[in-house]
Amino acid sequence: MRDVDPLETEDDSGQTDQTSGPYSAGTSYDDADTEPDSLALEQLKRRGLLPTGLCYDSRMKMHMNAEFSNNAHHPEDPRRIHEIFEAFKRAGLIYQGPPELAARVFKEMPTRYMWRIPARFALDEEICLAHTPAHLSWVKETENMSLAELRELTKRYDSTRESLYVGSLSCYAATLSAGGAVDTCKNVVAGNVKNAFAVIRPPGHHAEMDQPMGFCFFNNVPVAVRTCQKEYPETCRKVLILDWDVHHGNGIQNIFYDDPNVLYISLHVYMDGSFYPGRPENDEIPDGGIEHCGVGAGLGTNVNIGWHAQGMGDGEYMAAFQKIVMPIAQEFNPDFVVISAGFDAADGDELGACFVTPACYAHMTHMLMSLANGRLAVCLEGGYNLDAISNSAVAVARTLMGEPPPQMTIAKLNKEAARVLNKVQVYQSHYWQCMRPGVVDMALAQSNRSQRLHDFVRNAQKDVLMMKHHMVPLYIQREKLHRTFENQVLVTPTIETASKVLIVIHDPPELLSQPDYGDHTRLELHNSFIVDGVTSYIDWARKEGFGVMDINVPNCAERTDASAHMPPQIASLMEWLWDNYIELYDADHIFLLGVGNAYLGVKMLLINRREYTVACRERISGVVNFVNGNLRPVKSQTDDGLSPWYKQNSQVYVAADHNCWLDPSLTQKIEKRRFGTVVRSKESGLTRMMDAHAEDVQRWIQDRVSEEEESGDTTAESA
Amino acid sequence: MRDVDPLETEDDSGQTDQTSGPYSAGTSYDDADTEPDSLALEQLKRRGLLPTGLCYDSRMKMHMNAEFSNNAHHPEDPRRIHEIFEAFKRAGLIYQGPPELAARVFKEMPTRYMWRIPARFALDEEICLAHTPAHLSWVKETENMSLAELRELTKRYDSTRESLYVGSLSCYAATLSAGGAVDTCKNVVAGNVKNAFAVIRPPGHHAEMDQPMGFCFFNNVPVAVRTCQKEYPETCRKVLILDWDVHHGNGIQNIFYDDPNVLYISLHVYMDGSFYPGRPENDEIPDGGIEHCGVGAGLGTNVNIGWHAQGMGDGEYMAAFQKIVMPIAQEFNPDFVVISAGFDAADGDELGACFVTPACYAHMTHMLMSLANGRLAVCLEGGYNLDAISNSAVAVARTLMGEPPPQMTIAKLNKEAARVLNKVQVYQSHYWQCMRPGVVDMALAQSNRSQRLHDFVRNAQKDVLMMKHHMVPLYIQREKLHRTFENQVLVTPTIETASKVLIVIHDPPELLSQPDYGDHTRLELHNSFIVDGVTSYIDWARKEGFGVMDINVPNCAERTDASAHMPPQIASLMEWLWDNYIELYDADHIFLLGVGNAYLGVKMLLINRREYTVACRERISGVVNFVNGNLRPVKSQTDDGLSPWYKQNSQVYVAADHNCWLDPSLTQKIEKRRFGTVVRSKESGLTRMMDAHAEDVQRWIQDRVSEEEESGDTTAESA
Repeated sequence: MRDVDPLETEDDSGQTDQTSGPYSAGTSYDDADTEPDSLALEQLKRRGLLPTGLCYDSRMKMHMNAEFSNNAHHPEDPRRIHEIFEAFKRAGLIYQGPPELAARVFKEMPTRYMWRIPARFALDEEICLAHTPAHLSWVKETENMSLAELRELTKRYDSTRESLYVGSLSCYAATLSAGGAVDTCKNVVAGNVKNAFAVIRPPGHHAEMDQPMGFCFFNNVPVAVRTCQKEYPETCRKVLILDWDVHHGNGIQNIFYDDPNVLYISLHVYMDGSFYPGRPENDEIPDGGIEHCGVGAGLGTNVNIGWHAQGMGDGEYMAAFQKIVMPIAQEFNPDFVVISAGFDAADGDELGACFVTPACYAHMTHMLMSLANGRLAVCLEGGYNLDAISNSAVAVARTLMGEPPPQMTIAKLNKEAARVLNKVQVYQSHYWQCMRPGVVDMALAQSNRSQRLHDFVRNAQKDVLMMKHHMVPLYIQREKLHRTFENQVLVTPTIETASKVLIVIHDPPELLSQPDYGDHTRLELHNSFIVDGVTSYIDWARKEGFGVMDINVPNCAERTDASAHMPPQIASLMEWLWDNYIELYDADHIFLLGVGNAYLGVKMLLINRREYTVACRERISGVVNFVNGNLRPVKSQTDDGLSPWYKQNSQVYVAADHNCWLDPSLTQKIEKRRFGTVVRSKESGLTRMMDAHAEDVQRWIQDRVSEEEESGDTTAESA
Repeated sequence: MRDVDPLETEDDSGQTDQTSGPYSAGTSYDDADTEPDSLALEQLKRRGLLPTGLCYDSRMKMHMNAEFSNNAHHPEDPRRIHEIFEAFKRAGLIYQGPPELAARVFKEMPTRYMWRIPARFALDEEICLAHTPAHLSWVKETENMSLAELRELTKRYDSTRESLYVGSLSCYAATLSAGGAVDTCKNVVAGNVKNAFAVIRPPGHHAEMDQPMGFCFFNNVPVAVRTCQKEYPETCRKVLILDWDVHHGNGIQNIFYDDPNVLYISLHVYMDGSFYPGRPENDEIPDGGIEHCGVGAGLGTNVNIGWHAQGMGDGEYMAAFQKIVMPIAQEFNPDFVVISAGFDAADGDELGACFVTPACYAHMTHMLMSLANGRLAVCLEGGYNLDAISNSAVAVARTLMGEPPPQMTIAKLNKEAARVLNKVQVYQSHYWQCMRPGVVDMALAQSNRSQRLHDFVRNAQKDVLMMKHHMVPLYIQREKLHRTFENQVLVTPTIETASKVLIVIHDPPELLSQPDYGDHTRLELHNSFIVDGVTSYIDWARKEGFGVMDINVPNCAERTDASAHMPPQIASLMEWLWDNYIELYDADHIFLLGVGNAYLGVKMLLINRREYTVACRERISGVVNFVNGNLRPVKSQTDDGLSPWYKQNSQVYVAADHNCWLDPSLTQKIEKRRFGTVVRSKESGLTRMMDAHAEDVQRWIQDRVSEEEESGDTTAESA
């Protein structure tokens, strides 16, 4: 690639002249007495007795930004690799004694220190295994550019998705970085070292076949993997690349997208494609999307675990490894494993804003070491907090060297992250046996042979309420609402003349079913149960002479896509019911009972009809809500009286396991008036809660009716 | 315990005089040049550089059966530990050079060989941490017994559940075995070794607090664990005991049953309690039952993974570790881990008849090494095939010493074993956060607030068939059948006069629902679908002028308890329907369509009405079955014509993923006539199969009708 090295290696002690480990053919035991039995070299080379390799070369620091502007700090700072190397030294992982003793130390204590693998320049033919010749030429050309040209180039790239700076020695460092990755991987595959860590830069995983991107020129890991596959076709056929950089490795994904022999698994922050590298210009699904599973022969060998948000930590990463990464990796059964090890998901990295601890990096490394006979190479990618990357890298290196990963208390898995993992499982279940339990055949479920269970159940519920209480569907005379709420609003026959009315606004009943573990998610009808806490309240209300309006709100959860339009719909429905029915009723005592997410309807009614003919609350004697989801404030900036009224006239039962009880700042917050009179239930789950508080609620309602009747101050009169 | 050792250790090289590892205070580097930097002892003691300990003492072979009868071979053979020790030697894991060089070798290559931990006699006070003084006295008394008394004792015990032989040196060996376990564990906890393997016998895990049992006198592991907890209260508070012996470790379970600080997890063959140690005399739930989760403060710290059958292998053990053992162990977060390592689940052990490979033992060890900062001690329990236990123990030892576990292709998980894991998850979900996703609140599901979903769905199905085809329920005039089959048999109005009749005997429709991963198994009604493949066949039959009888068989799966009585019930129903209805119909062409497990009804009818007024098959023009469960033979020893008729007049579509296609011996077997004309479907799952073959089936039926009509040879006439 080039004739003259412009710089000498600045450091270090250590044996940079050796390329094949302490047990290479040239090394032999000189003191036969210490090794009296006739163990063959092969037995000595048992991986437990081989050292961990380390590739580091300070010349890779030559790629830098400084010359373009004196105070232009760039996160991909040359000190990154230097700091890691220094941390290795401080941790005692690198031999620092007199060079002349190195050979002896390594012979006697082969696993005591990391074995130095020299970096070298990647060959053109190696780079072209993963890149187009045009791309190689382009990178080479930057060596001949003038400073002005480089400045111009950097200015152009830095402001685009390519996000790159280019210096006169960038090509030099990038070629060394790629070559370092190649020799690191080759030494592991050849069995010269037990495993290895390449502390290299510039990073590689964003570089595409035909363009640089995201601080990356050559995609180091694919260059190294393809080289190993070519040179060791027998022992290195199938390769797993695990990318835990906080950014998606678009370049690696695209290079191997149709390759069945390279499994690419990436854990990264995705944020619906808004996190770097984000959305390509053509506005397709961003590269990091969970939907991308590979193509052609490579279908199934691309696994994207794209987090919904920043802030992920050990709980999420350990769960991802246990539930997705390790099962798929074991089924794939690779011959060689490479970690694209960015440390920007580490606790302390501002760009990543995640919280992965060094202990967790150690555990993930330990798990990956169980694959491929332990043939594992770690190649540095991103990571920009110098302390965080150093501590993380030391933890990984210690684990590679045989230290057990540190004892660790794993935080509880974030619920939304659990959903991400579930989604990944669903996508990958087409390609991996181990991903199938728990995944439903949605194509079949949504075929014309299927019917939505909700309709069955509401029909049955309607039949029961018709039979027991002669309740009838209320026709909703609005086209849009009608379609959604057909059969969903039922009323007792003479509700308009009842003196007491109970309006129940509830979620559909709960469906509980124990999936047949062995048979994926085929649920069994005879082991599935519909659990309904509302009916007993209606039974009670009827017995007490209430008129009842039962409003079933099909799907009021906020997160699913299908229900994005539900809040406006439920608001319209409640307004329409108020204006056309409830307000016109004769009732003296109207109570609202909100159950589950549907209690949004209560809030919407109180807010949107706060200034109607009369404020609707003046007709309402009390509000009872059962909440196991979002707690919803009832307030208005134009109506100071709303929140105090709500506080005084409500009982809001909140599930025992609700987040608001776990976080003291939340617990304090919900004491505010706009959340009503909040009561912590001893139970969780709507049905159990409604059962537990039935007596209290019924007494509370009756007391209010009695008070109003005794004082003559019925809400209707006061209106 | 005793003053004189009756025997000298027979072997070996190695440093039995040292008790605290190569970095103990007494050892120092004599050649400062090889260690030029000033690393502290602590840094040197980093576990990656500590050796793996090995406890072995040939005196434990003194417990033997031979003296009682010359040819009495007993599986718990003294050679067991000897063979393992020899295998370690052959594998080069044990230093065998000149004793005078040992110290130097260990100093220079501390991790090259296993570090010998001498066995010693357990102290009375140590034994009494896990046993009653009475039990200790009883064991000691055996030393003073005459040969005749010992013979008598052995004879008595050998025939009972205690299953024990006692020799004059049994107490001697047992005390050494327990003491060996104690010092092995203590050395690990104290950090003198990285981890350790105690090759000891007699085993311990069946021994109860107050009695010997199953070849065991003292329960070595509990004695050692309690001693460590007592002597290292700070560093060894919480202990995980993982017992992979193929038999349940009843003794360990019972000793720690109420102890919250010792988590006992056992993987064992259970077979509904029929496998040793099986059922205690009082006939409670056998100790090994999944139901046993601990008691009092120890509730949740007992986990039994009891296999339904022998024959388990790597697929099941790896799945158990991934899905149950590791998540619970990580949540428990132990300070110290002990493996009660019987190797009788190993491939080759006749008593265990399981198929765990050495590679799998290595992987399980590797996973456990990630806990408790790597503080792991392995104590031998059972295992009786000398080759199997040696190879397995070597694999475990290599892993302890830092070798990566071997690359392994993991077999697919047995479906029934998957159900066992699911059941364990359900039981443990009360105590472990990590076990909760996927577990239903069955108490709520079966409360009086719930309704069985099956009834909702069948009602809805009935409504559809009534509306579309005016089908009506057939009243079943038999008390017992009526209750089960109310609404389950529907017929078209004039079926008795139809010339063509289709009898459909089917499972309930499938319920597909994607559980909300984050929210346990709360299923959402709007994301749940009822999928039904039968209705389109009925639509077709009606269009073609068939009379239709639709028989819904609520729960015909054979494995669930609820349906144990179903086969006789479905037989009664089919007989009753035949005798009272079908046989009396005018039809010339009767077809049976069996779907799913319910196709048992087709078989029962053909067999039980083979010699009625006329053999029912003479009225039947053809049989079509869709099968994704058991394939059922239709044959009779008194009626040679039945199987050939069935072969000639049936189409039996079998799911693409059915076991019978995977096992060549099964594939051959189902070609026999009694299974009918078996066709491999390209699809799996009843609905997909019925869709895929609708045209073929309909053409096949029509062709038969046409043929019969053309030849005038209708079944009715031929009858």
